[in-house]
Formats: sequence, structure tokens, C-alpha cells
Amino acid sequence: MANPAIYTIRRETGATPAQHIEVQRRSLIDAFRRVRAESDRRAAPLSAEDQIVQSMPDASPTKWHRAHVTWFFEQFLLVPHDPGYKIFDERFPFLFNSYYVAAGPRHARPERGLITRPDEADVAAYRAHVDAAVERLLESVAENAPEVFRIVEIGLHHEQQHQELMLTDILHAFARNPTNPAYDPDWQSPVATASTEYVTVPSGIRTIGHDGEGYSFDNEHPRHDVLLQKVRLAKALVTNAEWLEFMADGGYATSSLWLSDGWTTVQNESWRAPSYWRERDGRWFAMTLAGQRPIDPSAPVCNISYYEADAYARWAGKHLPSEAEWETAARSGLISDAFGVLWQWTRSAYLPYPGYRAAEGALGEYNGKFMVNQMVLRGSSHATPAGHERVSYRNFFYPPARWQFTGVRLAEFV
Amino acid sequence: MANPAIYTIRRETGATPAQHIEVQRRSLIDAFRRVRAESDRRAAPLSAEDQIVQSMPDASPTKWHRAHVTWFFEQFLLVPHDPGYKIFDERFPFLFNSYYVAAGPRHARPERGLITRPDEADVAAYRAHVDAAVERLLESVAENAPEVFRIVEIGLHHEQQHQELMLTDILHAFARNPTNPAYDPDWQSPVATASTEYVTVPSGIRTIGHDGEGYSFDNEHPRHDVLLQKVRLAKALVTNAEWLEFMADGGYATSSLWLSDGWTTVQNESWRAPSYWRERDGRWFAMTLAGQRPIDPSAPVCNISYYEADAYARWAGKHLPSEAEWETAARSGLISDAFGVLWQWTRSAYLPYPGYRAAEGALGEYNGKFMVNQMVLRGSSHATPAGHERVSYRNFFYPPARWQFTGVRLAEFV
Amino acid sequence: MANPAIYTIRRETGATPAQHIEVQRRSLIDAFRRVRAESDRRAAPLSAEDQIVQSMPDASPTKWHRAHVTWFFEQFLLVPHDPGYKIFDERFPFLFNSYYVAAGPRHARPERGLITRPDEADVAAYRAHVDAAVERLLESVAENAPEVFRIVEIGLHHEQQHQELMLTDILHAFARNPTNPAYDPDWQSPVATASTEYVTVPSGIRTIGHDGEGYSFDNEHPRHDVLLQKVRLAKALVTNAEWLEFMADGGYATSSLWLSDGWTTVQNESWRAPSYWRERDGRWFAMTLAGQRPIDPSAPVCNISYYEADAYARWAGKHLPSEAEWETAARSGLISDAFGVLWQWTRSAYLPYPGYRAAEGALGEYNGKFMVNQMVLRGSSHATPAGHERVSYRNFFYPPARWQFTGVRLAEFV
Amino acid sequence: MANPAIYTIRRETGATPAQHIEVQRRSLIDAFRRVRAESDRRAAPLSAEDQIVQSMPDASPTKWHRAHVTWFFEQFLLVPHDPGYKIFDERFPFLFNSYYVAAGPRHARPERGLITRPDEADVAAYRAHVDAAVERLLESVAENAPEVFRIVEIGLHHEQQHQELMLTDILHAFARNPTNPAYDPDWQSPVATASTEYVTVPSGIRTIGHDGEGYSFDNEHPRHDVLLQKVRLAKALVTNAEWLEFMADGGYATSSLWLSDGWTTVQNESWRAPSYWRERDGRWFAMTLAGQRPIDPSAPVCNISYYEADAYARWAGKHLPSEAEWETAARSGLISDAFGVLWQWTRSAYLPYPGYRAAEGALGEYNGKFMVNQMVLRGSSHATPAGHERVSYRNFFYPPARWQFTGVRLAEFV
Repeated sequence: MANPAIYTIRRETGATPAQHIEVQRRSLIDAFRRVRAESDRRAAPLSAEDQIVQSMPDASPTKWHRAHVTWFFEQFLLVPHDPGYKIFDERFPFLFNSYYVAAGPRHARPERGLITRPDEADVAAYRAHVDAAVERLLESVAENAPEVFRIVEIGLHHEQQHQELMLTDILHAFARNPTNPAYDPDWQSPVATASTEYVTVPSGIRTIGHDGEGYSFDNEHPRHDVLLQKVRLAKALVTNAEWLEFMADGGYATSSLWLSDGWTTVQNESWRAPSYWRERDGRWFAMTLAGQRPIDPSAPVCNISYYEADAYARWAGKHLPSEAEWETAARSGLISDAFGVLWQWTRSAYLPYPGYRAAEGALGEYNGKFMVNQMVLRGSSHATPAGHERVSYRNFFYPPARWQFTGVRLAEFV
Repeated sequence: MANPAIYTIRRETGATPAQHIEVQRRSLIDAFRRVRAESDRRAAPLSAEDQIVQSMPDASPTKWHRAHVTWFFEQFLLVPHDPGYKIFDERFPFLFNSYYVAAGPRHARPERGLITRPDEADVAAYRAHVDAAVERLLESVAENAPEVFRIVEIGLHHEQQHQELMLTDILHAFARNPTNPAYDPDWQSPVATASTEYVTVPSGIRTIGHDGEGYSFDNEHPRHDVLLQKVRLAKALVTNAEWLEFMADGGYATSSLWLSDGWTTVQNESWRAPSYWRERDGRWFAMTLAGQRPIDPSAPVCNISYYEADAYARWAGKHLPSEAEWETAARSGLISDAFGVLWQWTRSAYLPYPGYRAAEGALGEYNGKFMVNQMVLRGSSHATPAGHERVSYRNFFYPPARWQFTGVRLAEFV
Repeated sequence: MANPAIYTIRRETGATPAQHIEVQRRSLIDAFRRVRAESDRRAAPLSAEDQIVQSMPDASPTKWHRAHVTWFFEQFLLVPHDPGYKIFDERFPFLFNSYYVAAGPRHARPERGLITRPDEADVAAYRAHVDAAVERLLESVAENAPEVFRIVEIGLHHEQQHQELMLTDILHAFARNPTNPAYDPDWQSPVATASTEYVTVPSGIRTIGHDGEGYSFDNEHPRHDVLLQKVRLAKALVTNAEWLEFMADGGYATSSLWLSDGWTTVQNESWRAPSYWRERDGRWFAMTLAGQRPIDPSAPVCNISYYEADAYARWAGKHLPSEAEWETAARSGLISDAFGVLWQWTRSAYLPYPGYRAAEGALGEYNGKFMVNQMVLRGSSHATPAGHERVSYRNFFYPPARWQFTGVRLAEFV
Repeated sequence: MANPAIYTIRRETGATPAQHIEVQRRSLIDAFRRVRAESDRRAAPLSAEDQIVQSMPDASPTKWHRAHVTWFFEQFLLVPHDPGYKIFDERFPFLFNSYYVAAGPRHARPERGLITRPDEADVAAYRAHVDAAVERLLESVAENAPEVFRIVEIGLHHEQQHQELMLTDILHAFARNPTNPAYDPDWQSPVATASTEYVTVPSGIRTIGHDGEGYSFDNEHPRHDVLLQKVRLAKALVTNAEWLEFMADGGYATSSLWLSDGWTTVQNESWRAPSYWRERDGRWFAMTLAGQRPIDPSAPVCNISYYEADAYARWAGKHLPSEAEWETAARSGLISDAFGVLWQWTRSAYLPYPGYRAAEGALGEYNGKFMVNQMVLRGSSHATPAGHERVSYRNFFYPPARWQFTGVRLAEFV
């Protein structure tokens, strides 16, 4: 459950502090190269045109993602910690800051798709410039190594988050293109466990939150006790076949199944199936990273909003799990497909853990200021970069959001 | 903390079941008359013109409130349980259903202010017609008495909720009237306890939710255990004087104090003070039920949104209480002004208690379908009818809402 | 075609200037009483509730109309010309100024329906106060009589315009009330001439615009020559029976019949019949001042937008008349129902006549600033007060507007 | 004033009909190559990224323009007139139809910027495919030559219109890019005549509209007589220096100078200078095709809306010319810079000439359906392709539009 694929600050037995620093340094340089390369790998199937498009304010162009994660290293690492560093382009901080108010003014989010210049080649050069500077700093930093290493590690986890968004955002754009482009014609839907079994979650006082091994975001803290009721969780995720039953039973037309805000959304948006589904001559297809494909009944249903997940659970006579139930079950290995298939909606609102305080400064804006109006998702998806997932990880989206790789796991009270 | 002022189904010691029914019958008829009269008393200072105005989609005209609570008795009590009952006007169910989808189609909420006909006199006649029919039914019902009594009791608590809204909604309308009308020139702001003390809430496993004595709504169930961290609650509510300090310290201009959605609201709505405050020649006034009045520094700050309450708490280095903390402290009588002054924002999202299921049928739409995107408020306000408040009561509004009588109590983790 | 019913400044043969002034004075006092009484007569069927409702930003409450026309006399007559006049209420100029920027700040137009106080009785008292002051001034004014008389006359024509709006605006509100209230159950649709005849309009150089007899607004000036092509105008207005043929032929579903902006409106607003028409069990009804009534096939079609009038003309292989053609035909008495039935859309955009200049000061805002984006209507309707109509009169509304008493007369080029 | 640069169907003296066809054929093939090449020349400075961006619904991506004008030839020429023609890509008609309802369903206009695929190379191939087919058809057509030639000619004029839009639309996008990209760093603002002279336009009955020589659009017909008042037109266009005076005199802050709809726009859009002007440290700059440049006081003011042109004229104590006045003056060569500098707003609404009827079929949608809510502009701009302009040409835009190369010429009544 930890995330060894990136880098973990773990003291080697018997190593001196200096040796420990050197091990970390090598490991982190290696991780930096791997993570940065993964961004380029994900952008590679996309033309410069593809990389500029922004299909809604919540989605960003690929080019912007590539530049923004680079700016993150420039802004939070190089500028404060590399005295010799020269800003690549004075205009970039304005263009590629996302929402860090403390880091200065920003370009308007809905207008990211208008920034055709700097062009894709400029952004590639920006990446190379910053990569070289970061590697130089990592190689040379001495006294300040722990702080530098800490920021690089944050930057890598941050970049991994954007790697997932690169895929969800381009899929959103392609889904609005009448020609149904494929991001990768060979892309395969994740294979999930088939099971109708429910497993009992250990009840009573349990501890959740990050346990101190490996990387974590601030929203996973403080680790704290929770009191769990008796509850059972589905071993498997809800499938497309099950979702088709919900649809056939009038799920999208039955107001009593829906939260009031959800029902308003269903009507305003004319929802009658998951986000990227289309009916053609009586058959259902979905827009995927491989282009338009027939629905696979055995695959887990995907691109589901919280409103839909909640309505489905009500229709099924079940509930969604709380995030504490989910984490407890996942820690015990009780459930299948906790990671690597689809993010799983919980019935928990995204709120601070008791005693949570955001960090000082701009990096304190990372998580805490979003703790209202959103619901927690747990696990990870097939688009999550290897090693990014973790059992205490808290993802969060607004209840109507459907463009993420989101699915449903059910729960029932005993 | 119970609500004896209305009516409670409580078996008298030594009474036969038949005697018990008769006691209940008398008590309920009395309660019915008192609650219905209170609605008329609250409408009395308002002209027919005042009673038709709707100043925003979330607020309703007084006349509509008066008719809607009457329709509630007609729809859920008289139609199913009084075979001889004749609907007062066939057009009224369409006009005065609020949101009960199962009870049939409804007039659009934002257009309630257009219904000048039926007029105020028609609605008064509607009330009299339904009052007479309800009293006849209450006097005569035999076999079916428990079910009839149960529905009447729901109807009375429902009407009490609208009695509070009658005041909040007309204040909203009057606050947008440049002539600053007074609902009641003699109305007085509630006097609150002055204290800077914090009291320790009992930690560990505690039980919250309704305990079976007296009336309750479904959202207060199931009663269940929660695990409380060590926390202290302010004995008193935040005052206007304290709020002025927050404002003087740039509270409304400091993005780092705000949740991201809250900051967006501050900017879009140009918030720089609580909802009904206005600056005149460097002094602050507020629009109140008595018209425009100078700010009283010692009074508790009122008409505060969740976003503002949360920002203030962050500025003060504190938190808001959770609803479980609040309920535990209030059950122990640790805090002042739990009731009768202002509703108090908690940091708890409005979600179902573990295992909650809404009732079947239209009355099942009462609470459950609103359990997303809103925050819980606890206590009651000076506008809450006597006897309506209770320690397990869960009120809820959207985070930007400011037209309710809402205030702030702080918490701190130990 | 002149408007004798109000008042005309016309020198009597053989009268001395002083005698002439006295004749004018008596005539104007009489006109003032008649016009003011007509406003009250039109408001009489409406309750205080009815008089406060505002069903859209373009429509105003009856109470507001009654106060606004009164403010007009206070603002433009009494304040500048009656040294002893005392403003009735210092808050009223803000509340009841419509759009005269030069006359000071104004309450927001879409919020007129929120002003429940001052109430209906306050407005009645305002009217009485101003009436008395105007009459006193009219009786006593000497040296300044011509200017005072001129402003009173403007004020009366202004009030007559609002008298028509009182009816169109309350009909709009009642049409959105599911109970279909009647303004006047005995109201009768105007009887129009039945004819399929087209009459030839004199072509060549013609003169249009006001000719100096009787009252006129500035937009009817300067009188000027125009060059008319050979054109024929329908003697009669288009009827409901003809409109039903247009509908049956797919008129509302055939994009090629519509202007592009019109077609967008048809789709966005789901137009499929004139504004207040509703289909019930296969039959068409219309909401009228008498409540909901079956469509009368022989009556002229009413509540038609410019977009619909234009589409109908295209469908019929005809055009709409230009305002110059209409005025020339009406001056020659060639056409029926020029006045008193329905306003008639022309194909002329509302633009200044060559050399037009608005008056100085606030009264210069009366017409000129609206000369863009609107189309001219000619004639008058059954809701136009007696004596207000005139052959050079230019009415104007935006192309999608449908809440006025508007109809269609066709034209064809020869 | 005619447009020899493209192609004109003009019978050569002494030629046989067959010889005439051959002359036309050669001339038209030559024109086709020149016009098509000009589109590519205008796109050449733009990367694939630049060519996909759509900065507002009214502006289109360069790539879309290039494909749309190509689809026009495919749809209206090749499909009906070349039996052997094979559609390049079955998906393109849906993607690249603009607004021709009769030509089938269309992609939503505001989503043109999302079509990253087909990519820029696909569109280049589409152009080559259609070019080859058109040239083959032009070379080989015999019996049907007049109809084919007519459609090709329409297609070329249509493409020239889009060539101007390619520049106005990319400038709009670049102006919203904080890095101020230059379309062409060497681009020069047009040099205009400096003069304060007013010239008298011949009054009385004049004839306007297309006179039958050379190409014309349907909206220039029928040629007809108009009656002109006595009026004088400014020889020169209003300059930036004059506009700065208007600004310094509070032009954008004085409501009495503006049409009511214009004043609403000024306030809602916070206009305080022409569209692309920005103040930096007290100096004014404008975004131009050469990037951001200091304002040249002697250059004609550009990117002006009708509302601004009208307000400026009122401030100056003048009017705008009518389109008939403009055309009469331009036919007589009385005014400078009629063509090739900036389009000139007239005070004429865009309406059909008397007796106008749109053509049958999809090409009938070209002009007529836009004849409402827009104002006529006359002349041409520096972005208009050589040979496209003509004295009877009627351009039209909505009154608030500012992204075209639009300027102001004044008129005064005598």
C-alpha cells in the first residue's frame, strides 16, 4: 500500500546520516527522472493541437499541465533554494500558476485553452530547463538537503496527480469531438474482480489517516481514532451489467431515488446514462481512451458522479461506504480492486480530520481550502501513475463531477 | 430540551389505553390551535402586499407559507384519513405543494411571488376550512387515532419550521427595500451571554441522536455512538464587536482565511460584512426585524454564512464544533445560549446518520433528499417558535446562505 | 387622427392672448382630471396584491406605474415650477424614477416588485397630493403658463402610455398564474374588419412625421420627405384563422421562414404559437384580459413578436409595411383598423428621423436613447387610451417582445 | 470600385459565345488559384496550435475557416455538379457547415475550438483534394459552364470574406493572450488621409444598390431610388487623437452621450477605451496584428463598436452617415479612405432593400436571414482582400461588436 515506486525517505539500517542522505539523493534523482518522463510519455500520443484544447473550465490543456507541474518546481524549489537559478521566462509564472493565491496573480482558469503561445516547443524547452536545474540542485545540495528533498518529493506527487488529469481531461475533450478520436487505440479497460460477496469490516474503534511510512499529503493527517458501526462492504465494484439493470428499471427517471440536488442535475443535464455513454440503434457504447467502444457488461461502471453512485446505492437497497470503513477494509485487504481500477465514491464529505491545520505559505493551499462541498473518493484508478496510490489517500470531487475515472462500491449496515 | 410546548405522546402512569388516547386528543387539539394561531400572529403585522412578495427563489411569500402548511394537513391528513373531506380548491395542491414529488406536480418555486390570486382572504378562508376539518377529525377519530395523531404532530412541527421562515424571508425582502421597513418596530435583538470561557466537552464514546422522548424528525435517527476527540467549546457566541475586529484586520480581504469556494463567493458577491450590514458615514448599521438599527457591539453576530463562520474561526486560530461535540456539550448544559438566540454553524456536513433510511411515501422526502452539499446548524434562534427546539435537532443550509438567523460558536482542540 | 380627447394648444380665432391662455387653462385642467382618473379606473379591478406583482423585468407593477407617472409631474413640473411645493416623500424619487439618468439615481428596475412599502394606500395619497398641487399650479400660473402647460401636457401623454402598459403588464402576470385570473370578466376582444383586399399606397415623394397640429413626441420630428416604392397594403389585419393555417403548415418548425435571430428565439423559448396561446385537448385557448378564452378565428392575431410577424409575412409571400408606407396609407384613410385594435409591426428599424436631436435635459431621455435594436410599430391598440393615438405616432419594441397588444398587417411590392 | 482582381463575367467585344466561355474559364481558374493561395498565405504565420484556438463563439479557428470555405465548394459545387466527385471525408460536412440549415445538421458553433482532430494536416489535404476536383471540373465543364462558373465565383467571394475574418479572429485570440503575440511583427497600421473637411453629398433622388457590373451579393439588390436630405460627410476618418479627446472629456462616463443599450454595455463590460487598448503607466497601447503597439495619434481609430461610434458622433455634435449617403458620396469619389482602411459604421439598420427576396435553397441563407438587429458598415478595411471591395457592398455587425476592423466617419445635416 505504500508507494515505493517514487521514493521514500526511509532510514537504511546501519547507515550513517551522510550515507542516508546519499541514498536518498540517488533515489530521488532516479524518481525525478522517471516521473518527469512519465508526463512526456502520456503527452506523446497528442499533437500540439490536441495539447492546447480546453473543453471545460474544470479541465486543462495537456500543454498547460506539462508547464504547470514544471512551474511548481521552479516556484517552490528553484526560486527559493537555488540562488543561481534564472527564471526561464518571466511571463510563465502568471500563465502557469493554478490556484496558489500566495504565489501571485494568475491567468484565468477558463482561458487556459487560449494560450497558443508559448507553444508546445516552448513548454518542452521549459521542461528541459527546469529539469536540468533541478537535477543540478539535487546533485549539489548539502546542508539544505532535507528541505530540498522534501519539496522535490511534493513536486513529484503533484506531477503524478496531473498525470491522471492529463488523461481524464483529454478524454473529456475527445468525447465532445464528433469524430471520436482515440488517445490510444490499444488502450484496454481495466479487468476487475467479479464477485457478489460482501465482507464484514472490523467495527469498534479503528485508526485512520497516514501512519508515517512513505509520502503523504497533509489532508491524511492527523491520524486519529474513529468509531465504526457494523458494516459490510462489497468485495467487487458495480459493473456495467448491473448499471444497465438500474437504467432499465427507470433509475434515471425515478425522483425518489435521488438526492434533491442530484435530481435537479439529472433534469438540467438530461442525464440518462453514465457520462460518456451513447445509444446507437438500441446498443450502448462508451467513449474511452481507445475511442468509442461497445459497453463491456462485466467491466466496472465508470465516469459516475456522486449523485449517480448515491442513487444507485439507494436503488440497490444499500449505501456507499464511509471513508473510514473503506480505509479499514482496505488496510485489512478485505476487498478487491481497492487500487488500480477506479476511484470509489464514499458517503463522506471532504472535511478536515479533527485538529487538521493547513501548512503555512503557498503550499498550505494544496488541500485544505477545498474542504467544503466535495465528497471523498478512495483507492486509485487505472490512470493513476504506479506508486502514487496509498490506503490513506483522500481524493475529492464535487458531487456532479463525471469526467474522472470514478466507480461504485456498495456497503450495507448489518 | 424536550419540546413540551407542543405535544408529546407520553403515557400517563396508571391510565388505561382509552384514557391515554383521550388525554392525547385534548392535548393535541390544544396544540393544534396554539400552533395555527402563532402563524396568524406572525403574519399579522404584514399587509396583503407584504405577504405576496418573494425576494429570491430560496425565500417564499408569507401568504404562500400560510397556505403551504395548510395544504400539508389537507394532503397528508385529511385526504387520506377523512373520507368525507372535500378539497377546498382543486387548484391549491398544485400551487402550495413545496417539493413533495410523490404528492404530484407543483408550481415553480421561483414564481411563488406571482400568485396574487388566490388572494390573502382566500388563503385565510383555506386555513379556516382546513382548521375546522382537522379539529372535527381530531375530535371524532377512534380506531385510527394513533396514525392521525402522528400526522397532526408532524404537521405542527412542519408549520413551526415555516413560522421561522416567515420571519427570515420577510426580513430578506425588507432588506432589499430602500425604505427599510420594520416588521415590528419594537422587536429586540436577543440578549446573549458574555463570556470568553471555553468548556471541555466529555471525550470518548458518546451517544447522539434522538433518545425517544418527545417528537423528532427522521434525520435525528438512528441514535448512535460517536467517538469524540478532546475539544473545548466557547461558552458564548461570537459578538459583533469581535466580528468588527475580524473586519478591521482585513478578514474579508485575506484569501488565505477562506475556503476556496468561500473566497469565490466573497469576490463574486462583494461581501465585506455580514449580510444585512450597511456602512453609513463610517458607522455600521444592520437591517433587522425592527428596521435599520446601529450595530450593538455586545450582541452576537448574526446572518453569517458557513463560509464566513469558517473564515472567522481560522482567523481566530480556532475551529467550528462538530455537531456531535455540540450535542454532547448541550446535553451536559456546558454551554450558554444553546437555544433561543441564533442557530450555530457546525463543521459537520449534513449527511445521514449511519443506517439512516428515509420513510416511505411523500413524507419520506422531508429530510433525506437534502443530505448533500449542506452544513449542519445546531440549537435554535430567537425566531424559532417556543417548544420547537431540541438538543438532537439538525438544521441545515448551504454554505453561502446568509438570510437565516445564524451565528458562530468556536471550538478548539486540546 | 389628432388627439382632441386630451388637449390641444390651438389658438381660437379672434381670441386675445390672455383669453387664449384661459381657454387653455380650463381645457388642460379638465384633461388632467380625466387622464388621472383613467389611471385609477384601470387599477380599480386590481387588489393591492395584484398591484405589487412584477412578472418580468420588462413589466412593472401597477402600483409602480401609478406612482411613477405621479413622480413625473412632481419631478419635472412641481419641483422646478412651484416654489412652494413640498416633496411628498423624500424616498419616492429614488423609488419611482424609471430611467431618467439626469434626474438622479434610481431603484433597480427588476426589483420594483419588492417594494411592498410604501403601500397601495401611500401611493394613492401620493397621487392625491400631487394632483392637488398640479391643479393649484394650473389655476394660478400666470407668466410662466406656456411652459407649465407644455410640461403638464407631456406628463399626460406620458401617463397615457403607462395606462396601456398597466394592462399589458398585468396580463403578463396573470398569464403566468396557473389559476388564469381575469382582469375584467366582461372584457371583449376588439372586432376588426374582415377583408382580403390590398390597397395601393401613393408612391413617389411623400411627407411623414408630425405636422404641427396637436401634441407630438420628439421622435415624430423632423417632418421630412421620403421616397415610396410602389407597394400595396392589406386593408385588414391577419386573423387567428390565418395564423392557425401558418401553424398547421409548420410555420414554427420551418427554419427557412425565420430570421436567424428569430429562429434562435423560437428554439430557445420553445415557441409554437402566439404568446398567450395554450392547447387543451387539441383546442387552442388564449389568456386574455377576460381570463382564458377559446381562440376566436375571426379576431386579429395578437401578442405577436416581430420575429413571428416577419416569418408569417415570408410564409405568405408578402412583406411587412415600412413605417412610411403605413403612415402614408393611414393619412389617406386607405386601410382599416389603423387605430384602436392592435399595434402593427413595420419592417422599419426604430431610428432617428434625418436631423433628429433629442431635447436637452432629462426629458431628452424620453425617446432618443432607445433608437437602436428595436422595430417600429404603428397605429394603436384597444388598450390605448382614447385620444392618445395619432398617425405619426412611433411605438417601438424589441423584436422578440410579445407581451404587447401587437398584430400583423401585410404589404406587397407591386 | 468594381472588383477586377477576382473575376468578372463580362462579354468581350466581338467574341463568339464559345470564345467567351473559354476566356471566362481561364480567368476563373486563375482567380480560383489566387484566392485559394491567399487563404494559405494568411494562415502561414500561424502554428497548428494557433489555428485551433477559438476565443469566443463569434470567432472561429483559422483551421475551421480554411476547412469551411473548402466545404463550401464541395457542398455547393462538387456534390451537385461533379457526378464523379467523392466526398473527402463523410464527417466533414457536419464539422464544417457554418449555418446553412438547408445543407444539413451542423456542429455547434461555440465548440469549433474543440476539433483538434481532424488536424491541420488533414485540413490541408482536404483543401488539396477539393482544389484538384474544382480545377478538373472547371477545365472540363461544357454545357453547364455558366452555372458552375457562377457557383465558383460565389465560393471565391465567400472565401475572401473568411480571409478577413481569419485576421480579425486571430487578433481577438491573441489579444486575450497575456504574452501579446504578433501575427506579423512587420504589419503596419494603414495610413489614412488627414483632413477636417466636410464634403456635400448630392441630395434629392439618388440610386443605390448594385449596378450589374461585376460580382455582387443578393443584399445589394434590388437597385433602387432613395431620397437624400442635404448632408455633408467628413472627408477623413476619426483619428486616435480625436478619440483621446473624447475619452479625456469623459466620453465613456457620460450616460447622456449613449444609446440606452450602449450605456448598459459600457457598464456591464467596463468599457473605457476602444476594444484592444490598454493603459500602461499612463500611456495607451493597442493590441494589433504586430503585437502590442503604442497608440498612433494620427491613425484612424479602430475596433470601435456601433455604440461607441454613435456616442462619439453625438459628443462631436454630428451624426453617422446613412448607407445611402455613404454610397452616393463614394460613387462620386467625394470622400477619402472609402476603401482599404477601415469599415465605416453607418446609422442604417441592416434591412432588406425594398422588394428584396433571398435566393431559393441553402445559398439563400447567405444574407437575408441576418437582416435584423445589426447595423450596416460600408467600405472595406486593410484586411479585406484585394478586389473584394465595392461601392454597393453591405457589411453588417451587431451594435456591440468590436473585434472587426471598424472605424468612424462623421456626417452633419446642413
